Amino acid sequence: MSDVAVSAGRRGRSARREARASGAGGLGIPYITRGIPIYDVLSDEGAAQIEAQADVLLQEIGIEFRDDPETIAIWKEAGADVQGERVRFPKGMLQQIVKTAPAQFVQHARNPARNVVIGGNNLVFAPVYGPPFVTDLDKGRRYGTIEDFRNFVKLSYLSPYMHHSGGTVCEPVDLPVNKRHFDMVYAHMKWSDKPFMGSVTHPERAEDSVKMAQILFGEDFVDQNCVMIQLINANSPLVFDATMLGALKVYARANQACIVSPFILAGAMSPVTVAGTLAQVLAEALAGCALTQLIRPGAPVVFGAFVSSISMQSGAPTFGSPEGTLLLNGASKLARRLNLPFRSGGSFTSSKLPDAQSAQESAQTIAATVVSGVNFCLHAAGWLEGGLCSSYEKFVMDADQLGMMHVLAKGIDLSEEGMAMDALREVGPGGHFLGANHTQRNFETAFFRSQLADNNSYEQWLADGQLDAARRANAIWKKMLADYEAPALDPAIDEALIAFMAQRKASFPDSNV
Amino acid sequence: MSDVAVSAGRRGRSARREARASGAGGLGIPYITRGIPIYDVLSDEGAAQIEAQADVLLQEIGIEFRDDPETIAIWKEAGADVQGERVRFPKGMLQQIVKTAPAQFVQHARNPARNVVIGGNNLVFAPVYGPPFVTDLDKGRRYGTIEDFRNFVKLSYLSPYMHHSGGTVCEPVDLPVNKRHFDMVYAHMKWSDKPFMGSVTHPERAEDSVKMAQILFGEDFVDQNCVMIQLINANSPLVFDATMLGALKVYARANQACIVSPFILAGAMSPVTVAGTLAQVLAEALAGCALTQLIRPGAPVVFGAFVSSISMQSGAPTFGSPEGTLLLNGASKLARRLNLPFRSGGSFTSSKLPDAQSAQESAQTIAATVVSGVNFCLHAAGWLEGGLCSSYEKFVMDADQLGMMHVLAKGIDLSEEGMAMDALREVGPGGHFLGANHTQRNFETAFFRSQLADNNSYEQWLADGQLDAARRANAIWKKMLADYEAPALDPAIDEALIAFMAQRKASFPDSNV
Repeated sequence: MSDVAVSAGRRGRSARREARASGAGGLGIPYITRGIPIYDVLSDEGAAQIEAQADVLLQEIGIEFRDDPETIAIWKEAGADVQGERVRFPKGMLQQIVKTAPAQFVQHARNPARNVVIGGNNLVFAPVYGPPFVTDLDKGRRYGTIEDFRNFVKLSYLSPYMHHSGGTVCEPVDLPVNKRHFDMVYAHMKWSDKPFMGSVTHPERAEDSVKMAQILFGEDFVDQNCVMIQLINANSPLVFDATMLGALKVYARANQACIVSPFILAGAMSPVTVAGTLAQVLAEALAGCALTQLIRPGAPVVFGAFVSSISMQSGAPTFGSPEGTLLLNGASKLARRLNLPFRSGGSFTSSKLPDAQSAQESAQTIAATVVSGVNFCLHAAGWLEGGLCSSYEKFVMDADQLGMMHVLAKGIDLSEEGMAMDALREVGPGGHFLGANHTQRNFETAFFRSQLADNNSYEQWLADGQLDAARRANAIWKKMLADYEAPALDPAIDEALIAFMAQRKASFPDSNV
Repeated sequence: MSDVAVSAGRRGRSARREARASGAGGLGIPYITRGIPIYDVLSDEGAAQIEAQADVLLQEIGIEFRDDPETIAIWKEAGADVQGERVRFPKGMLQQIVKTAPAQFVQHARNPARNVVIGGNNLVFAPVYGPPFVTDLDKGRRYGTIEDFRNFVKLSYLSPYMHHSGGTVCEPVDLPVNKRHFDMVYAHMKWSDKPFMGSVTHPERAEDSVKMAQILFGEDFVDQNCVMIQLINANSPLVFDATMLGALKVYARANQACIVSPFILAGAMSPVTVAGTLAQVLAEALAGCALTQLIRPGAPVVFGAFVSSISMQSGAPTFGSPEGTLLLNGASKLARRLNLPFRSGGSFTSSKLPDAQSAQESAQTIAATVVSGVNFCLHAAGWLEGGLCSSYEKFVMDADQLGMMHVLAKGIDLSEEGMAMDALREVGPGGHFLGANHTQRNFETAFFRSQLADNNSYEQWLADGQLDAARRANAIWKKMLADYEAPALDPAIDEALIAFMAQRKASFPDSNV
């Protein structure tokens, strides 16, 4: 290699190194657009068979909408067959109604560079949602606090492979149940500039979330654009309850996105088979998605499926199971055939610690998430113990894996540089490619660099202290939090948010329900 | 549920439980036949582009066959362009030659119920191959011995999800290098009745392996049937050495299967890109596969690809990387387009212990193995430390994962029982499926039951001793070996094998080369 080439290579490399360093400060790519095909286990005929069964379910058995006369009235008005709280649907009715839903939509972030497109050929990663407990290797397992909540918001902000700030990254159990939503939504707004999720635990808390979003984004902007996405679970089998319906109605009216997700442990809340469960998932998701369109045609909505199996020995939920993979893959095809964005997947595990079981179960699910066409992946990092616990170390391990999924989703580069014919000509039989011009030229961008994996020799690993992956992850999250710098927030908006929360908090007493 | 139904359900269950128990004694299914589609990242056009580049490589640069005049003479005779040890191939020549190779073939085991079909829509799992070291949680890492070798043969025999006994499950370093192949081949013949691999470290050791197979199966049977499969690595880039060529010629002449595998760490032994590496893999594999057909047309041969990337920080090999997955997937399509069986995949990792890194890297590779159309998967269980170490605990963890892959590969059951309409009708909104007739009827066969995963509550896990997956695996392999019973072997054959080995071992001095 000539001196000139070396020098040019170095200049190029240091420029790329700077770009990489700023990316590591939190600004990766805003979301994945797949360069690889979608993998379908179900044939079109198989999918049609499941759709036909869902039609029978919806017509013959129907779905219960409990303790919500307004929803019942909406269905009656729309022409469904209503008997008390049980609603049955003529064949094709729901499929017709969901046609007004967008096939893809933008969820806006307060930093427009972080906007995500949900649907189409895109994939958005969001962190763990819902755990009451948190754990790390130093302090062990304990109830989550608002400090933990903020920490997980900061870790998502800092990860270049996490596209979204998520919602209930852990439950801040130190705050009263009926007021913690203020602090949670505010934490997402203040400590991150990535898109986030609103509260769904009570219709009033949903209203509060919308009002805070209006302060952050402006009222008109919120009415015309999606700035929040919300998780609305069906109460499977075949039931929606008043809490979830209440939140769904608030958000759909406000033009904010609902993810209508049957939450199913197959064998308990659905049949003990994949195909039977898929028919139920389709019926439930269709009903919930259609309801959003009756409330506000064109409101963004996502077909969700949180579906795993149970252990037939103990009845406990299992994750990363082959049945879970088949369910995820099949449900994705059903959503795609309805032209709806699809939510599923994540870094699931039922393990109680960030060990081999946790990594294996999470890897199986996240690999399926990428190839199956998922558009919105909640629980992409940090989940342990069947979702009961947010783990600091697991978050780092999962986020590293998400980086790998970015490379996988790009597919194979068939450009002239990708084909590397000049390297093959330069090196020839028995040679070595490390010194080749092509290798030097592509050095900085070639091959994913794991922050976490130890690829060194056994001897080097011994010298480095014999750490396992969890121990290495422990050092990484501490350094991330130590280096964290908050993204700037307009002080006037910040003050308005704080004033709104103070006024609302003072207007009713604390309660733990 | 009526008493009659309960009683019938119980009878059915206990029968199925017996069937399951006998399977757990080692007899599982002999190999996987996929019920799921094959996933291709490369389009037909993309594959054709890589094939065109491989043609250029073969025509312009060619391949070196070193220190083997006989092979050079074979190529000259076949019409290749030979300059010293460098052989160049007219376009299409190799593709024409490999047409005599079978698209799939049976490898016979001494127990015919264990015969495997290699190629087509089938997938065969074989254990770790090659490590000089072994490790377990009790004794730590040390050089492998023949006792360890026998233990891994026994573990493969006992695992219902391992279809093959493999080859060098670890190096028995306590035996002289030039004689250990006798004890290794004998261990496979004696302590297992699954199919196995012969020695490739010297042409004479290959001859010894064939002679021992003739004693076990009969001379005529061996000449007409495949009873051994062998790993023949290219010395990438674009070189085959005399040792591998010597073994290849012995086995091809004896009608035994060769797996011609470029062994590539991309970035060092091939270009630093996936597409460039695939072109090189194709050129090398085509040359080796074609050579077997020139030696004996119709001899079974497998297109192999052991391809991973290197860390651009350290130059160390990496495993379970996204580039590794893309390489595996792309190479599978190239093999399929040649109508050749394909070998790749495994439970790879560069981790030094059975931790989260090891599980994540292995899960990513084995998931890709199943969906990408691999036919023969070496290193399916037991591998640690970039292949330098066979781990007892990792073997158990990987074998459990292989069980899950059996379920995944079956796909979605769309039969009447799979659709479960009767369960959905029986339970209805808000009900519970565990007690449903359909659930009871399918109780024993529904959902994969992991031997290893802990799906219990945190409290139960605490009470059980807070074990991680590796600790649980430790107990499992010890119980397996304690319960092991050898499959019967005809005493006359056993005596003949022992006599052959004694006579051969006495005929030349020990040596450690």
